[in-house]
Amino acid sequence: MRKIEILDSSLRDGAQAEGIFYSLEDKLRIADALDRIGISYIEAGNPASNPKDMELFRHFAANPLQNAKLVAFGATRKPGIAVEEDVNCTALASANTAFVSIFGKSWDLHVTQILKTSLSENLRMIDDTISFFVRAGKNVFYDAEHFFDGYLENPSYAMQTILAAEKAGASRIVLCDTNGGCFPQEVARIVGEVKKSCFVPLGIHCHNDMGCAVATSLMAVEAGCEQVQGTLLGYGERCGNANLSAIIPTLQLKKKYQCIPSASLSELTHTARYVAEIANYLIPPSSPYVGKSAFSHKGGMHVDGVQKLRRSFEHVDPEAVGNRRNLLVSEMAGRTAILNRIMRIDPSVTKFSPITEQIIGKIKELEYHGYQFETALASVDVLICKELGQMKEYFSLRHFKIIGEQNADGGEQLASALIKIQVGDQEEITAAEGAGPVHALDKALRKALEVFYTSLAKVRLIDYKVRVMSPEDATAATVRVLIESTDGENVWTTVGASSDIIEASRKALVDSMEYKLLKDERR
Amino acid sequence: MRKIEILDSSLRDGAQAEGIFYSLEDKLRIADALDRIGISYIEAGNPASNPKDMELFRHFAANPLQNAKLVAFGATRKPGIAVEEDVNCTALASANTAFVSIFGKSWDLHVTQILKTSLSENLRMIDDTISFFVRAGKNVFYDAEHFFDGYLENPSYAMQTILAAEKAGASRIVLCDTNGGCFPQEVARIVGEVKKSCFVPLGIHCHNDMGCAVATSLMAVEAGCEQVQGTLLGYGERCGNANLSAIIPTLQLKKKYQCIPSASLSELTHTARYVAEIANYLIPPSSPYVGKSAFSHKGGMHVDGVQKLRRSFEHVDPEAVGNRRNLLVSEMAGRTAILNRIMRIDPSVTKFSPITEQIIGKIKELEYHGYQFETALASVDVLICKELGQMKEYFSLRHFKIIGEQNADGGEQLASALIKIQVGDQEEITAAEGAGPVHALDKALRKALEVFYTSLAKVRLIDYKVRVMSPEDATAATVRVLIESTDGENVWTTVGASSDIIEASRKALVDSMEYKLLKDERR
Repeated sequence: MRKIEILDSSLRDGAQAEGIFYSLEDKLRIADALDRIGISYIEAGNPASNPKDMELFRHFAANPLQNAKLVAFGATRKPGIAVEEDVNCTALASANTAFVSIFGKSWDLHVTQILKTSLSENLRMIDDTISFFVRAGKNVFYDAEHFFDGYLENPSYAMQTILAAEKAGASRIVLCDTNGGCFPQEVARIVGEVKKSCFVPLGIHCHNDMGCAVATSLMAVEAGCEQVQGTLLGYGERCGNANLSAIIPTLQLKKKYQCIPSASLSELTHTARYVAEIANYLIPPSSPYVGKSAFSHKGGMHVDGVQKLRRSFEHVDPEAVGNRRNLLVSEMAGRTAILNRIMRIDPSVTKFSPITEQIIGKIKELEYHGYQFETALASVDVLICKELGQMKEYFSLRHFKIIGEQNADGGEQLASALIKIQVGDQEEITAAEGAGPVHALDKALRKALEVFYTSLAKVRLIDYKVRVMSPEDATAATVRVLIESTDGENVWTTVGASSDIIEASRKALVDSMEYKLLKDERR
Repeated sequence: MRKIEILDSSLRDGAQAEGIFYSLEDKLRIADALDRIGISYIEAGNPASNPKDMELFRHFAANPLQNAKLVAFGATRKPGIAVEEDVNCTALASANTAFVSIFGKSWDLHVTQILKTSLSENLRMIDDTISFFVRAGKNVFYDAEHFFDGYLENPSYAMQTILAAEKAGASRIVLCDTNGGCFPQEVARIVGEVKKSCFVPLGIHCHNDMGCAVATSLMAVEAGCEQVQGTLLGYGERCGNANLSAIIPTLQLKKKYQCIPSASLSELTHTARYVAEIANYLIPPSSPYVGKSAFSHKGGMHVDGVQKLRRSFEHVDPEAVGNRRNLLVSEMAGRTAILNRIMRIDPSVTKFSPITEQIIGKIKELEYHGYQFETALASVDVLICKELGQMKEYFSLRHFKIIGEQNADGGEQLASALIKIQVGDQEEITAAEGAGPVHALDKALRKALEVFYTSLAKVRLIDYKVRVMSPEDATAATVRVLIESTDGENVWTTVGASSDIIEASRKALVDSMEYKLLKDERR
């Protein structure tokens, strides 16, 4: 199995994504997660650029990573000065890492129009900077920024830049499609041409502005690149970087390259969701391999086919990447999917058991009233357990009242909730204020329940969706609320429907809490 | 410019995505939006499969689309029966469309293991079914399901299936990567091979399970396919279908193919967001071309570079697809649109008037707080009139209080609203009960206003949409409410946003009433 090095730049290029702000603690946790699954290199920013990054390098100097090498990142020296006088270069050299990535200009347009220096000075900048770090005992990767754009416009100059880096002692030459606008087959062709005259191992670094970064990276590997750079979830400037959670399984499962240890591959989904949680971003459900819907089957013929023969509608086994198959519980998929769900909870039930019919009937009735169980599998499990008589009454909601009060002119706004619950023969009454009535209710319910169940303190709601089901009924319409919750480890979705949004939210909230308590007990 | 046909399957394959449920009204609006930008074909489901799809075909038979051809979708006949006896085929034939897509099996594994019939019977099924529809006067596209998987395992049989379709009179042969697991360069190679013996124009239909559907579609076009199938936003089973909003601009701007009229390309971003709104899905910000962050620049050197020279960090001009570079992305079509709106109300205003800047600033500020004015033009008009000082104070909302009270065990549920308004120097206080707090508020507000303005008695709310803007904030998230109202003659839409759904609804309701009073006065 040929080894492909993976360099993850989540902490550097990934932090350039709109809406991403990592604390130092976030960065340490992400680096640890990447290290655990055996990523080869973690590019962690420029220690000279800010104190947070400096702190990170200090931390890992004292507490080395197990598998990954930490890579510091910087630019070639400024035009017209000696490299020893460039404060960014000297700061980078003093960072305690064995590996540095140095990016420089390979597109003549950028040299003359953006840096506003001469083509020959740029070559000297590359030579000087890399030589400087090699003399300092570092292992140097050279990132050839805009290499493909440059090669298409001035191939001879683009080649001179990377040959200068090679001559100066760079251990990897990384070809970058910085603007994400180059075609996969052109990138593959150019990689092939570069390999004829550049003998240092090549890397590929793609951006996703055409939606092709994954394919381009794969094709660059086939054309001879030995290092793939990207970010675990594709985060990055503009449309993001090459998505490593899509690239790694394809290379490893389908092309038999070794990117991370085989045993780590089944940790991929978990790791991706963990990192997304730190970034406070939801992974789009349709994300290849690690998305919630990546192996969800809805069309009747697909649901039927995949049960007869996995590979009839799945290109890989979901378990291989730690994900799972979902047969969506809906009118489309039908009873088989529901039966599978029941049997996971009670293997003694068959499709001929009367209880099966009863549960299906109940689900259909609720769907008729606006519920939708396709994604809300935690609500399905709670319902099944209740119908099977296997659900104990963790709590009951005796009463609640919400009050919203507003002086519209003054803009003052207040929502509060009062709630009374019963657990066994004990009652708890409490109240909370919130950003709106649903928020107030959510807070009050949790406040009351945590008195009895401390594990609920870890539960956070991470998604809240509202869908108006019969918009023509306007403000009297049925609304469906979907709530996604997490305890930091698992993620589950529950549903509620009613013509009253507060009632619909209440049902989904209660299901979420019951599901968590049920899971804790069955663990 | 070579023409590439685009077939959008948002209404068929796209409806297979987890979490997507279209009402008939949703489907009609999506089809109209696709038609307006000049998509060649709209695949709209199987009229035989459910009454909703049947209704859709009936609607478009009576109200034909301007540009697009509607395509009905179905399968080859069942094994062992005559095509005339297959109810799905006869129902499809009776649908009033000139175009049908018929999918059949091209992978021998599916024939023997899933359909459990013989390879020769499958060929007869393809021949019979296509011949049947050709005889019925239809233009038939043949979708060769799993073509590439089939070709890799049994190329001679895969070829026999499409040659049978060609011989039977199919006008397009569409090669499908149904499982999304084939490599772009292999797809391109196979398309090249197919073209040597199949002379009907070829289409390509890719799924995104490896994250390569866009690249594979682009490469299939380069290899000779003349039709690209996908869904505007990439929605579809599992990881989705090929994302047309990424494919169309690349083919059109960078490869000089003609997919949609040139003038429509700048409507792409607007249309994508409109369709996403109907689907109640957020477009991931990093989506190529149409995402909010697609042309957002964060890195200092990038921000600097792109201002010196656009193409230094942008592979295409954002305006070409109707997107924009700003970090502050406004969904409104831009200042020209706003100016046009102002000038309709007050023709003396020009783009140089200070009031223009003031109104645009106000709209941007509200958009930043979660408003969205793209569809809520009545709210825009109310805002403009207020900023111009041309709005009289029809009423003011002095105070309101809503109470929701529930005994969860008993299921009893009560929502009521108390409201006080002022008109001139008269006050009116009243109350109402409703199906939920928003409904109660809506009723109370109208009850109070009708005392002064009898024309409001004719106003009905016909649509009510709730969109959670920052789902990660869960129940404390900002929500946006869109309300559509009618007086039986005109229809108008208003918007409100707040972290409190009642407050957001109140704003949209008040705008709706004010708009009606304004219109009555200016009539």
